[in-house]
Amino acid sequence: MEAQTSTKPTAEKELFIKMVISNWELQNARVNKLISKLTDEELATPTAPGRNNGVWVLGHLIAVNDGMIPLLGLGEKLFPELEAPFVGEANKPGVATPPIATLKESWVQLNAKLTQYFTELPAEEWFTRHNSISPEDFAKEPHRNKLNILINRTNHQSYHLGQLIYLDKK
Amino acid sequence: MEAQTSTKPTAEKELFIKMVISNWELQNARVNKLISKLTDEELATPTAPGRNNGVWVLGHLIAVNDGMIPLLGLGEKLFPELEAPFVGEANKPGVATPPIATLKESWVQLNAKLTQYFTELPAEEWFTRHNSISPEDFAKEPHRNKLNILINRTNHQSYHLGQLIYLDKK
Repeated sequence: MEAQTSTKPTAEKELFIKMVISNWELQNARVNKLISKLTDEELATPTAPGRNNGVWVLGHLIAVNDGMIPLLGLGEKLFPELEAPFVGEANKPGVATPPIATLKESWVQLNAKLTQYFTELPAEEWFTRHNSISPEDFAKEPHRNKLNILINRTNHQSYHLGQLIYLDKK
Repeated sequence: MEAQTSTKPTAEKELFIKMVISNWELQNARVNKLISKLTDEELATPTAPGRNNGVWVLGHLIAVNDGMIPLLGLGEKLFPELEAPFVGEANKPGVATPPIATLKESWVQLNAKLTQYFTELPAEEWFTRHNSISPEDFAKEPHRNKLNILINRTNHQSYHLGQLIYLDKK
């Protein structure tokens, strides 16, 4: 019984983690498919009249997903320079944005890095506190753990994918 | 040690279920807030030129979320009549759609019913097979369980919320 006592919870956790990462990967695959289909001209078009264009949405997804690295205590952001142009209001005066080709490369690099981090993180770690909740609040709300951040960011990505898809006129 | 063996996995499961349901409720709250803000006229407007209007998106979310009831083996759909107008192509010839006021009521009723079902479902049940995966496939891919459907449908809702928000001009 001893072995079962110590391994069962970890097996459970590994299953949960697989569920969350699978859904994350599914959304990434959908974004990848769409981006590879759209021309740079289409990506530079507003997703709807008066709304953000595809470049902003892509930059925003990179900046926000990149933010998971420090938030989950995995390391430093790969692209801290994308925070200013792509988080908060779009088209801030005097804030330059990188070329589309650079953003597309950053997106691929970031996903490879996140996949590596997520794969290497021990199961137990996913259920610990992330860096934007206090130890006191976490003691009361243990569901607000690192894995919860990934569930939340997957939904955030789905939200913007629903907008990005409007650029697909084919 | 015996007690720990049997209770620890359930506590783990309950925590994980809470994470998934919390994210589902967060998306519901966002849709509710937006719907209560939009006029019927705004809801009847396309979310972007040539795209579905808010009424279709709302009807689609009700129909798809309602589909979880039989899929998870919880019971029968509350609004089976919404499948024809709101799943698949929009504006099918000869397919009538209910008035906006009726849809808004159905949305509230459905969420109350889903909340009840989700709360009452035993933790162990969430990790069992749903009705669109075969026992053979489930044996190989146990992460494709009932709870995984809720993660997936939460992302589906986020995707469409990203479109619905375009009706908010204020």
